[in-house]
Amino acid sequence: MTNKILIVGGVAGGASAAARLRRLDENAEIIMFEKGPHVSFSNCSLPYHLSGMVEDSKSLVLSTPETFKKRFNIEARVNSEVININREKRTIMVKDAVTGNTYEEGYDKLILSPGAAPIRPGSIEGIHNKNVFTVRNVVDIEQLNAYIKENDLTDVAVIGGGFIGVEVAENLRLAKLNVSVIEFADQIMTPYDYDMAQIFHKEMVDHGVNLIVNDGLAKINDGSIETQSGKQIMVQAVVLAIGVRPETRLAEDAGLEIGETGAIKVDHNYVTSDSNIYAVGDAIEVYHRLLHKPALLALAGPAQKQARAVADHIYGIPNRNLGVIGSSSIHLFDLNAASTGLNVRTADKAGYSWDSVYILPADKVGLMPNSNVMHFKLVYENPTGRILGAQAIGKGNIDKRIEVIATMITMNGTLEDLKDLELTYSPMLGTAKDVVNHAALVALNQLYGKYREVKVAQVRELVENNAFIIDAREQNEYNAGHLKNAVNIPLSEFRDRLDEIPKDMAVYVHCRSGQRSYNMVMALKNLGFTNIFNISGSYLGISLYEYYNDLVTDREKIVTTYNFK
Amino acid sequence: MTNKILIVGGVAGGASAAARLRRLDENAEIIMFEKGPHVSFSNCSLPYHLSGMVEDSKSLVLSTPETFKKRFNIEARVNSEVININREKRTIMVKDAVTGNTYEEGYDKLILSPGAAPIRPGSIEGIHNKNVFTVRNVVDIEQLNAYIKENDLTDVAVIGGGFIGVEVAENLRLAKLNVSVIEFADQIMTPYDYDMAQIFHKEMVDHGVNLIVNDGLAKINDGSIETQSGKQIMVQAVVLAIGVRPETRLAEDAGLEIGETGAIKVDHNYVTSDSNIYAVGDAIEVYHRLLHKPALLALAGPAQKQARAVADHIYGIPNRNLGVIGSSSIHLFDLNAASTGLNVRTADKAGYSWDSVYILPADKVGLMPNSNVMHFKLVYENPTGRILGAQAIGKGNIDKRIEVIATMITMNGTLEDLKDLELTYSPMLGTAKDVVNHAALVALNQLYGKYREVKVAQVRELVENNAFIIDAREQNEYNAGHLKNAVNIPLSEFRDRLDEIPKDMAVYVHCRSGQRSYNMVMALKNLGFTNIFNISGSYLGISLYEYYNDLVTDREKIVTTYNFK
Repeated sequence: MTNKILIVGGVAGGASAAARLRRLDENAEIIMFEKGPHVSFSNCSLPYHLSGMVEDSKSLVLSTPETFKKRFNIEARVNSEVININREKRTIMVKDAVTGNTYEEGYDKLILSPGAAPIRPGSIEGIHNKNVFTVRNVVDIEQLNAYIKENDLTDVAVIGGGFIGVEVAENLRLAKLNVSVIEFADQIMTPYDYDMAQIFHKEMVDHGVNLIVNDGLAKINDGSIETQSGKQIMVQAVVLAIGVRPETRLAEDAGLEIGETGAIKVDHNYVTSDSNIYAVGDAIEVYHRLLHKPALLALAGPAQKQARAVADHIYGIPNRNLGVIGSSSIHLFDLNAASTGLNVRTADKAGYSWDSVYILPADKVGLMPNSNVMHFKLVYENPTGRILGAQAIGKGNIDKRIEVIATMITMNGTLEDLKDLELTYSPMLGTAKDVVNHAALVALNQLYGKYREVKVAQVRELVENNAFIIDAREQNEYNAGHLKNAVNIPLSEFRDRLDEIPKDMAVYVHCRSGQRSYNMVMALKNLGFTNIFNISGSYLGISLYEYYNDLVTDREKIVTTYNFK
Repeated sequence: MTNKILIVGGVAGGASAAARLRRLDENAEIIMFEKGPHVSFSNCSLPYHLSGMVEDSKSLVLSTPETFKKRFNIEARVNSEVININREKRTIMVKDAVTGNTYEEGYDKLILSPGAAPIRPGSIEGIHNKNVFTVRNVVDIEQLNAYIKENDLTDVAVIGGGFIGVEVAENLRLAKLNVSVIEFADQIMTPYDYDMAQIFHKEMVDHGVNLIVNDGLAKINDGSIETQSGKQIMVQAVVLAIGVRPETRLAEDAGLEIGETGAIKVDHNYVTSDSNIYAVGDAIEVYHRLLHKPALLALAGPAQKQARAVADHIYGIPNRNLGVIGSSSIHLFDLNAASTGLNVRTADKAGYSWDSVYILPADKVGLMPNSNVMHFKLVYENPTGRILGAQAIGKGNIDKRIEVIATMITMNGTLEDLKDLELTYSPMLGTAKDVVNHAALVALNQLYGKYREVKVAQVRELVENNAFIIDAREQNEYNAGHLKNAVNIPLSEFRDRLDEIPKDMAVYVHCRSGQRSYNMVMALKNLGFTNIFNISGSYLGISLYEYYNDLVTDREKIVTTYNFK
């Protein structure tokens, strides 16, 4: 008996499922339905059309119905909206957008991959104006790009500082437009903690983006927008990138179970509450293995894995379902960044007993060309040392460190495992002790109580309260810029200047990147100073942490001059 | 009681041990002895002085005795050769190279970090000429560089195609010299299998290196060298990079146990056969966790880990010893490469039941700038699916994929684990299904018997024996270059041309990079063709595999035109 399998929606989920199904069964009848004109396109590459990095929008389209037919003998019907499911009859109703006709199609198995739709808050005045755009597919990005180019736009606002908002802003900026980004939260890029996000904030303003956090879109006027705090910004177009909502209408109408997150509920095998209907991709909720509960995760990698698992399940091949951890990366102007697992905020919210370290090592041997500081934050469980997540930002090979952490999380690794990893090294590509080994060593020192640290976010309070802060750098470094009330006692001199260091109060030590202060902290501890703290992040981290808020508020600076390298 | 700890040798092992010891004990008396003038330098960066990438050789020196003294209160005595150990008295005899004086120094604990010395086969005529160099330290590289510059050399031979030989050759070539590399084995870079090494061979000849394999140095004349096969090569200087030999003299003379590999034998804690003497770095043998036996591993990362473990052990801190797996990377002209664990050759020699896959995916989304093909080979145990090793070569983020495999090996991961890993993705940095996920899927298909493949090395024989080979690419691709007797049946046409495919003989399928052939192989299998093989590596892999040997021999080509991208 021939299997007839219908797939609603293409792109990462649907197209992957279709191709895998064909490899498993040459005789199955496989039909994909896509509402829009493109059955398979590079979703994540859409923003790059705005800068011209992807010049021809046609190259965003990965496969046409013709290729699907010829290569895979799969029928892909574009401009075909599936408007309802009759579960009893095992049929769907399809509407042809070109002819307007509707027709029924029967199935043995149905796979839903409808994705998620950009949120467009209807209550905001002007939200439906023709100069207000969202970015979901090739048609959207073509329309936005055409509107900008044809009307010679100079000023655009992007609402929302998540992945899409940030990438759209970057690419508009690369196309020489004036770009404002309005973010409701106190930071953009929420997979990153607030301290790490300050690096993004600096990168945005350094590249001329008008970044506004803690504010929302209130109203869209003709030629301007108004924020909730009352700011007026002159813009000729608005891109909404506030977030996405799982496309559940079809599933809901068919009476399929919806989960607590508002997305389609599926079991281990991505089967919905109807055993003949599967669902994958951004429309479903997935099990988060660190949060131990259902979560939304609109990412292409997991969607592809789910699609393959569904095809396998239809043909009786068992699949493990390890849940998700949430790994992602982004390129932003001159920065690369990546994160995986939990950050401090999500770990805390989930009730974990956590701690973290933030280190700033060189990404490759310092004397090699293009050696740069990498910002690396590791979150772990206390006291087990289990690795919970990491975030890394810098200019070079950032993501490779996060892949190692993602692998460690999946393999239930601890700080001891991470410390012992034997990774590759050559001077052009890394350092003998890799960033992740380094982070594990620092974290173990903290976990085992070998030394204590304060976080970069606490430094302002220390300065304001006149805490005793030692700057362990050399005098010329200190003179070039330092914390306002820090005492300069270089590592190279402190053994002769111990009498300057108080024993009856807390002492905080920093240097440039944390290496020298670590050595001083350990020495002072061994010398009987009991109330010694290393300042995590050191002067580089402090400079970055303070920079953006110094810029956008009128508060007093705690540094005389920043140092960013 | 104050601990007095003496360290013989600086660089990765000795200097790391010293700094860690100081952090553990502010009062210990720590003295390092270094035969040469530099106590700590970037060993792995030495070759980059030859091209001027590291212009000032002084920057290769990472720390001076002054810095050690001031920052760490560690005494570093340079130009101080330790000539023997009196284990009973717990003293060493030191010879001051400047004054010629010798003196005794007592110890509580002694750490040996003497490294390994370049091999200089005394039997070769001319081997001690003044224009024959080795590269071990800053003085060596300064002398080589000065000799080249001062004498305006134009032609240099490098003997040996390991890491140092290859990096020296690259940097000499970047300095516009004519460079010959003579390698005794049939390939350079032995951490890589023969098929992967062909990519290095092409890179070398593409950049104008005169690469000679299967040949050795026989004789050094005035102005030329003679190889064992009788080749005369006009060169004005020779760099010996044949390999290194652990520096065991001091240990042997002191009666310390030497292991089966010829290096110093140590226990779990890097204690030698004398409980007051430790040894670390290139002079010791380490336990290889995949080979289950002692091995030599001259790498900086493991040396640093050993050094830290020794310092910890002296102060009663326990350390795990997971053994080594052998992870390394290299940058060579336009290529990055990395490897970890076992390759096919070492897995086979160790008696493993192994299999491998070789895939050629894009390293990032194809339509992004700088997207390139990555060559990735994964070796695993059959039937357990345990991951044994991997090799990757390409232009982009190569090493990140190998770090994941190194992590997997350490965490005892299998192909199923690798397939399920949730790694980061953004179009500028990778692909939704990462290279390592992809390799695991292909390997699982093979392991589970879903399809069979032949290796790229077997293709010549297939062509010569007139095997039935299908080229599944489109006709225009076939016309641009193809295997001499391949039949062009594009994936997009084969379902209508099934009658052209024989059922009574083996059928081999390839395309450009393996994706289309995989789909065709699966379809044919499902259509009842039972004797179907995918050609691993596909046309890109075949082109690379054949290129170098086609160039240096007069054998007949099996391709009409190569395709490398």
